[in-house]
Amino acid sequence: MNKEKSESITVVKFGGSSVKSIGRIQHVGEIIQERCKSGPVLVVVSAMGDTTDYLIKLAKQCSESPDAREMDQLLAVGEQISITLLTMTLHSMGIAARSFTAAQVGIFTETVHNKARIVDVRADNLLKALADNDVIVVAGFQGVTENGDVTTLGRGGSDTTAVALAAAIKAISCDIYTDVDGIFTADPNIIQGAHLLNQISHEEVLEMARLGAQVIHPRAVELARQYEVPVRVRNTFKPDNVGTLITGGEHMEIYRAVSGVAIDKDQASVAIINVPDKPGIAGTIMQALADQNIVIDMIMQAFHPTMGKNSITFTVHQDDLAQTIAGLNKIKSELGASEVLSDPDIAKVSLIGAGLAGQPGVAAKVFSIFGQNNINIKMIATSEMKLTCVISQTDAKRAAQLIHDAFELKG
Amino acid sequence: MNKEKSESITVVKFGGSSVKSIGRIQHVGEIIQERCKSGPVLVVVSAMGDTTDYLIKLAKQCSESPDAREMDQLLAVGEQISITLLTMTLHSMGIAARSFTAAQVGIFTETVHNKARIVDVRADNLLKALADNDVIVVAGFQGVTENGDVTTLGRGGSDTTAVALAAAIKAISCDIYTDVDGIFTADPNIIQGAHLLNQISHEEVLEMARLGAQVIHPRAVELARQYEVPVRVRNTFKPDNVGTLITGGEHMEIYRAVSGVAIDKDQASVAIINVPDKPGIAGTIMQALADQNIVIDMIMQAFHPTMGKNSITFTVHQDDLAQTIAGLNKIKSELGASEVLSDPDIAKVSLIGAGLAGQPGVAAKVFSIFGQNNINIKMIATSEMKLTCVISQTDAKRAAQLIHDAFELKG
Repeated sequence: MNKEKSESITVVKFGGSSVKSIGRIQHVGEIIQERCKSGPVLVVVSAMGDTTDYLIKLAKQCSESPDAREMDQLLAVGEQISITLLTMTLHSMGIAARSFTAAQVGIFTETVHNKARIVDVRADNLLKALADNDVIVVAGFQGVTENGDVTTLGRGGSDTTAVALAAAIKAISCDIYTDVDGIFTADPNIIQGAHLLNQISHEEVLEMARLGAQVIHPRAVELARQYEVPVRVRNTFKPDNVGTLITGGEHMEIYRAVSGVAIDKDQASVAIINVPDKPGIAGTIMQALADQNIVIDMIMQAFHPTMGKNSITFTVHQDDLAQTIAGLNKIKSELGASEVLSDPDIAKVSLIGAGLAGQPGVAAKVFSIFGQNNINIKMIATSEMKLTCVISQTDAKRAAQLIHDAFELKG
Repeated sequence: MNKEKSESITVVKFGGSSVKSIGRIQHVGEIIQERCKSGPVLVVVSAMGDTTDYLIKLAKQCSESPDAREMDQLLAVGEQISITLLTMTLHSMGIAARSFTAAQVGIFTETVHNKARIVDVRADNLLKALADNDVIVVAGFQGVTENGDVTTLGRGGSDTTAVALAAAIKAISCDIYTDVDGIFTADPNIIQGAHLLNQISHEEVLEMARLGAQVIHPRAVELARQYEVPVRVRNTFKPDNVGTLITGGEHMEIYRAVSGVAIDKDQASVAIINVPDKPGIAGTIMQALADQNIVIDMIMQAFHPTMGKNSITFTVHQDDLAQTIAGLNKIKSELGASEVLSDPDIAKVSLIGAGLAGQPGVAAKVFSIFGQNNINIKMIATSEMKLTCVISQTDAKRAAQLIHDAFELKG
């Protein structure tokens, strides 16, 4: 293939809901037909709608705990179906196209099943195929090990495939087509005036995604940041809308103070009271929880100088709460702590903004708004581009709306 | 793997009806559990029941004439599902097992889609995997080209995979599990007294298979003959029955004169009358039909010395009859022939036996029986181990039964 062609390749990715039925595959074909007028297109697709769930159901009928290698070999079938059906559809529209599984491309991963990370993408086959085709259709979500075993990339796998391929072939852009319009300042189902962002930095999306925005998987965003791939999130069902461009900070000379507001109601807080102020105590506690695969989110330690004792407070997922309390009660006397307390009635309300760190007035404004509106703050955590307040669940929606209004995030 | 192990490997193959449901896969698992008590087992499976039909239906919804490469890539999914589900089932029974697609094994074919022939089997991966496993489960029906494209082997593909693998690893035996008991002297649904053969030669099966016995595909039998693979056809649903052993002639010192009787009612005969006796005429006719992909079966030429003209008669499949007549009428005047006649009311009744050629009395006996019973013979063809009479369809069943009785084929 000639160099010119290579430099104009566009990557587009369609998720499971976008290729749920033959009718929707036809619609995706029309989008691709339009896109390939401006140059060669590399398409990444997920499995059709609920194929993956159906295959998992079959597997569970054969074995209570299906082998991870066999499961990956089975699940890879889902994308193998969608890539071939989409390619046939493109053919019927007169578009020269060819499908590739991950093994056929050479998307090499580590030898870990169900959640493998990509270690190398060999794009030679793809570039060669693009010499004879307008469109190449690649199976998302899957990979292959050096010795030919099929792997899958875990949640958000197809997003990751798309960005990794875009990086490998130095694509001019990578569009993630999904079933929402793009990235919003807040959840439009909850916050009035929440509006679509035209542009956002990788870092801001990373902070948002973990809070449940779930428009694009954090792994894909991290990869996009690392390899400087410009990613656009847009709606399959409104192909004329441009969606949200996720791009490096260097393109965003003037940061917004606040880009978005997110709510997370799935956490609970746990406190260990009156722990002696000795080195290693926090480590002991965290190790005990890590041994049970419990992920800890916010963590803070308060020292009571008059008593020479500490309190350690942290948040865990509500599903892990009972196990966490039981685990801590076991080591309570060993630690010399007096009590283990928990609070399931918490919600995290977070402000996300790449410019947050440079604007100390933002935190002051938030605390002041909460005070004026009788919203009690239980915990506070800050990072470079996020300010999180833990408040009561009943206050969560009102608090998020107040912040959204105060920072004029409405459209 | 140690040499001893390699020399004791058994190959077993299960067709689509044997793995139609999770319940049947469970049953197949039990057969394999029993089989692997006597050594390592290599299993070849087809796609579950009607998976292939379902995938073809999906493809037709995407394109009126789906691309052959994409179709193969799609259809290969069927076996990828069955191998993983069977492997998971074996795991749940405590059997160490591992699944392989054709690409993972290295079943290399020519670059022809939908009906590729195997050119090479690299068994290293399989033998390596057998060092750590009791059972290896391989996808039938599929192959891979040197540059990684998926191919399918066409009809009878899984039988062919099983025999090719058995040859490659020098397996001690290759058992084709299917939904019938084995190979019969005649179709038991039509001929009274038809009984199961314990043993039959490759050559006899080849003659039978083409006549519609359809227990095992001729390609697999040819491969078995070429590589001296002992193949046994047996019933998945009666695993204690030993079925029919297909073996080389050298093991069969005393040939039966007649091993079986087959009926084929799907043919029609066509005659071109009064063709000038010039060289190349028959070639012109056959080429005209070959150009339309019409396969000719029996062919005979009668010369009328007084007229200096020939008549050429042959049989074609009934589905091709209209097209054959139209094609011949087009070239009739060019050939100088007077007429094209056809007869759709024919049936082929064939006697199959490895010892037929050495026993001229067999043909005489057949003609005499037909004469005594007022059965008119329209055409006769003979080969090393087959005698075929073309008669009227209404006589077919009676004729086959008469022969079956006369040669004492009843059980």
